[in-house]
Amino acid sequence: MRIALDAMGGDHGPAELIAGAILALEETDLELSLVGDESAIRKCLNTLEPKQSVANRLQIVHTTEMVEMGESPVDAIRKKKNSSVMLAFDLVKKGEAQAAVSAGNSGATMAAAIRKLGRLKNVSRPGIANAFPTLNKPVILMDVGANVDCRPQHLLEFALMAASFSRVYDIASPRVGILTIGEEAGKGNQLVKDTWPLLAESSLNFIGNVEGRDIFQGDVDVIVCDGFVGNVCLKVSEGLVEAATHMIREGIMSSSIAKLGYLLARPVFKKFKKRVDYAEYGGAPLLGINGTGIICHGKSSAVAIKNAILVAQQTVNAKVNENILLSLAENRKVSEEKS
Amino acid sequence: MRIALDAMGGDHGPAELIAGAILALEETDLELSLVGDESAIRKCLNTLEPKQSVANRLQIVHTTEMVEMGESPVDAIRKKKNSSVMLAFDLVKKGEAQAAVSAGNSGATMAAAIRKLGRLKNVSRPGIANAFPTLNKPVILMDVGANVDCRPQHLLEFALMAASFSRVYDIASPRVGILTIGEEAGKGNQLVKDTWPLLAESSLNFIGNVEGRDIFQGDVDVIVCDGFVGNVCLKVSEGLVEAATHMIREGIMSSSIAKLGYLLARPVFKKFKKRVDYAEYGGAPLLGINGTGIICHGKSSAVAIKNAILVAQQTVNAKVNENILLSLAENRKVSEEKS
Repeated sequence: MRIALDAMGGDHGPAELIAGAILALEETDLELSLVGDESAIRKCLNTLEPKQSVANRLQIVHTTEMVEMGESPVDAIRKKKNSSVMLAFDLVKKGEAQAAVSAGNSGATMAAAIRKLGRLKNVSRPGIANAFPTLNKPVILMDVGANVDCRPQHLLEFALMAASFSRVYDIASPRVGILTIGEEAGKGNQLVKDTWPLLAESSLNFIGNVEGRDIFQGDVDVIVCDGFVGNVCLKVSEGLVEAATHMIREGIMSSSIAKLGYLLARPVFKKFKKRVDYAEYGGAPLLGINGTGIICHGKSSAVAIKNAILVAQQTVNAKVNENILLSLAENRKVSEEKS
Repeated sequence: MRIALDAMGGDHGPAELIAGAILALEETDLELSLVGDESAIRKCLNTLEPKQSVANRLQIVHTTEMVEMGESPVDAIRKKKNSSVMLAFDLVKKGEAQAAVSAGNSGATMAAAIRKLGRLKNVSRPGIANAFPTLNKPVILMDVGANVDCRPQHLLEFALMAASFSRVYDIASPRVGILTIGEEAGKGNQLVKDTWPLLAESSLNFIGNVEGRDIFQGDVDVIVCDGFVGNVCLKVSEGLVEAATHMIREGIMSSSIAKLGYLLARPVFKKFKKRVDYAEYGGAPLLGINGTGIICHGKSSAVAIKNAILVAQQTVNAKVNENILLSLAENRKVSEEKS
């Protein structure tokens, strides 16, 4: 299997991305196409000195064009046909790679994926699925930002697609909940109320309402919401972990006894931070496209990039798209009757 | 000043609530009416043995009727006219108390407040304002659950009301942001897009978009959103702090060196937990009603109840309602022109 990595996207530049690529190749027998400026990539490779067995599986696809983080996605994709992200998805389109991974401008990655690969049959709106760390297995929240104003039909599709993706985490019959406020059926906004019957009548293992606090408990496998609410959840969690880390660090630095204590307990905090750090979590798949695309956080570290490449591999291996097609076809009646 | 406390609401029963009441009286010269079952209240008072100077400022308003946590708020308020929460707000209505505080069924507290006190002039929808801990001063998020489907006009009113409430935290010219996804103007769902011009043309110090991660940074004083999104934010934060505490505790218990380290650094973690524990934060005011009502978390500890009583006192002292009336009147033109 070959995966295309946009070697120009991300806040840390190509070195971090290529370090992640090397880590992924060390752990797997994957092949990788690094899409970006050949001389910059070669420079990184010279510094990082991958083993021969890794270097043999690296290919460079040269382009100097790239989408900047602040650019308008739609404009960028229209104008920059040879940007690294467009060429990465072009490799998938031509069958030369089985998946593409980018830590660049998320909107542009999404636009490039949809433009190059198109949507899967019966999908109205592709969406982004994000795995959250919990006390047990990860929980998949979808959509986390691709679609801000949604209709019930979109949420049903997100649920079916995210449930298919949960195969990657070996979850057999995923428990699917809808994110809302209040525990009783019928609690929530109009979108939740209208989506309820669709989920209840679908083939999904629908367990009903899930509240924000339940996300981290691990008693549900897939949580569905519109992309506005999902993105707010993601960013609130990220911001809270950052602020908490800051507050604790501040406290620890103010006392030498606390500092000593922290040194002793540090492995616990390191492990905790790794568990909840979204940048480490390995990228979020854009589901509903006719191919595989993984969107990474701009600030992704080499480890995060490695994890994202592994998620791409697992998504292909678990036949997530074939499963989405079946699941959407099976539930077409539910959609048509109700919406 | 006299404050009415619903002595029957909350997950921990009257003992915890009354302990909180005693703490509040020890710190202030307030008077308190404890509304609930007299014999149960007397039993708690006998155990807690408040000082004479505190006991003198405690009055019992007897009723045996109460709203259960799981009850439908609307039904409960209609049927249980003598419930502790209804009588607490009745004291405010009759001018015998200046504010009411309840840790019972939140929906019922809201319904009782609106039923007994009515809305302030020009307020379409009362809403709940919640103070979040940040790296600096608290940030006020509104609405956090009273109104799940909102129109732009409602969000403008929330912003004006929450800005008035920020007087309680001595914030002079509060920076007001709208919760959305993405930094650029115009990013967000339809509600955000339609609310933007209202906020921009209001008398508020509107600073534009705020993302979920900005909530905890302290670079904004008031954040406005619909009650669905706000409630999700609140519950996600709560759930994440709980899960994080659980994960860290688990890690610490697995190693004796880590345990020792934790013991040494414990004051830091205690301080941190206090800073981010919403139950400790002292209740959220229902703004927009013709009086003062504070809604507490069901699991509120005595300290949380004390803090809620202090928030009630500060809300009255800071003339929040007078300020809301002025602010809404001043901005009526904005509302009328635009909505």
